[in-house]
Amino acid sequence: MFEQLGLIGCGLMGGSFALAMKKAGLVKRVVGYSKSPSTTDRARQLGVIDIEAPSALLAAAGADIVLLAVPVSATEATLKAIKHLVTPQMLIMDVGSTKADVAQAARRALRDQVGSFVPAHPITGREVAGVEHAEAELYLGRQVIITPTERTISAHLHKAEELWTALGCRVTQMSPESHDAAFAAVSHLPHLLAFALINAITGQAEGDEYLALAGPGFRDFTRIAASDPKVWRDILLANREEVLAQSQRFQQALQTLEKAMQEGNAQSLEDMLTLASETRAHWRMGAQRGTKIR
Amino acid sequence: MFEQLGLIGCGLMGGSFALAMKKAGLVKRVVGYSKSPSTTDRARQLGVIDIEAPSALLAAAGADIVLLAVPVSATEATLKAIKHLVTPQMLIMDVGSTKADVAQAARRALRDQVGSFVPAHPITGREVAGVEHAEAELYLGRQVIITPTERTISAHLHKAEELWTALGCRVTQMSPESHDAAFAAVSHLPHLLAFALINAITGQAEGDEYLALAGPGFRDFTRIAASDPKVWRDILLANREEVLAQSQRFQQALQTLEKAMQEGNAQSLEDMLTLASETRAHWRMGAQRGTKIR
Repeated sequence: MFEQLGLIGCGLMGGSFALAMKKAGLVKRVVGYSKSPSTTDRARQLGVIDIEAPSALLAAAGADIVLLAVPVSATEATLKAIKHLVTPQMLIMDVGSTKADVAQAARRALRDQVGSFVPAHPITGREVAGVEHAEAELYLGRQVIITPTERTISAHLHKAEELWTALGCRVTQMSPESHDAAFAAVSHLPHLLAFALINAITGQAEGDEYLALAGPGFRDFTRIAASDPKVWRDILLANREEVLAQSQRFQQALQTLEKAMQEGNAQSLEDMLTLASETRAHWRMGAQRGTKIR
Repeated sequence: MFEQLGLIGCGLMGGSFALAMKKAGLVKRVVGYSKSPSTTDRARQLGVIDIEAPSALLAAAGADIVLLAVPVSATEATLKAIKHLVTPQMLIMDVGSTKADVAQAARRALRDQVGSFVPAHPITGREVAGVEHAEAELYLGRQVIITPTERTISAHLHKAEELWTALGCRVTQMSPESHDAAFAAVSHLPHLLAFALINAITGQAEGDEYLALAGPGFRDFTRIAASDPKVWRDILLANREEVLAQSQRFQQALQTLEKAMQEGNAQSLEDMLTLASETRAHWRMGAQRGTKIR
């Protein structure tokens, strides 16, 4: 399907994309660039990329598909760096967790060429970073949210949908703003809460003792607190308004539960816990498939 | 090691204990009782118990070991129900997630016989309830916290330690109060937060839409929100002071993160996320083994 993938950012997300594309036979060559030369080198040694590029521009040169897999705050600078080589035939995508800021960055950086850019967010990840953890199956069975801009060329949009579908993903389209509102609630806020819980515990004199006693519930609840701090710094800042609004709603829900505890209102507490428990017990990951939301 | 286990409460925790005891060859017979006759019946059909008892008292009759696996608020009434048949030779344990209230309930219910009671909390569980999900391996490799009272007979204490060790657990001893303070932080609060997050999301008009988009991070973070509402109502009420105190610390940590977001203070935010991420990345479940705390 593609001759040459220009991969900018050879970490977990980018490296896994390259491996998945190769495994699916969707690309002939992968030219890769990472900010850290040792990462690019390691990516080649591991067979994640075929050729090392010394710059983002050279990674994009001659590519018919370019993937940006960098922290979202680096999107604009990266797109500016490759702008001179962007052609209308080139499909450019990212994999960032926020989309309104990425769409804005693309408009500013690419200007007339912004139609080549298809913002994408695959709903996957791991709590470990780095090309060493890249795996061809990271995207398999996951949802991918595509948030086209008003300028996105529809041929590129269809190509992007076909590509992700061929990688075993279910594609959903929505606006960047709807995306950011939804993921503030179900992804960005949970990360913020997990980070806050760890810091609240370690801020206590007995914190280490407490952590040594924690079991499987704690393990799963806090898994995402081990996520990459720079990636999450960017996400929490880029989508801060939606995240702060969701955090307010969360604190209200928490305080409603606390009130029932303080009052010893067992029935009210049980009712609220039952609502949460039943909702979560019936929830299935990715239950809604490939639909358009707004 | 034991002739007869009297199992009071044949759900996930009790049923799994019976299966583990049988598998390890530690008990000859299991006599079981559950409040719901259909549960007791099902437990016998599944081979979790050998004989159905029509009451807690009859489940305890003739047993040399009794396990209470009931919601913590039922501890006192259950111990009162079996008091007439409690002998100094009988080892009685529970598996409740709170310990100060359970120790108090045991003192009130058993009076002179309280020395037979060894309060225990195995750090395990699943988000599904019921004897159908009972499994012999639920306790394998887990920590068990034993919180003896001032009256606990030391022979029983040693027997309890040997038993849990034989089931593949690591035993830690501490006071009921230290236990409740620690588990408020690493278990009870995370459950409260997970319940609150689900209710905050479903309380929004777009809640169902948002939930349909959630991925693996959300799945793991909220797994414990599917826990049994009655069990958790009891735990949150029994340990409410410690949980509310931990919730205050948590909200302060959350608001410190929010402040950095509001101010756009990327460095401060990154520093706090790095602290949390490194702490969680280095954490290992049950790293502290079989030590005495206070």
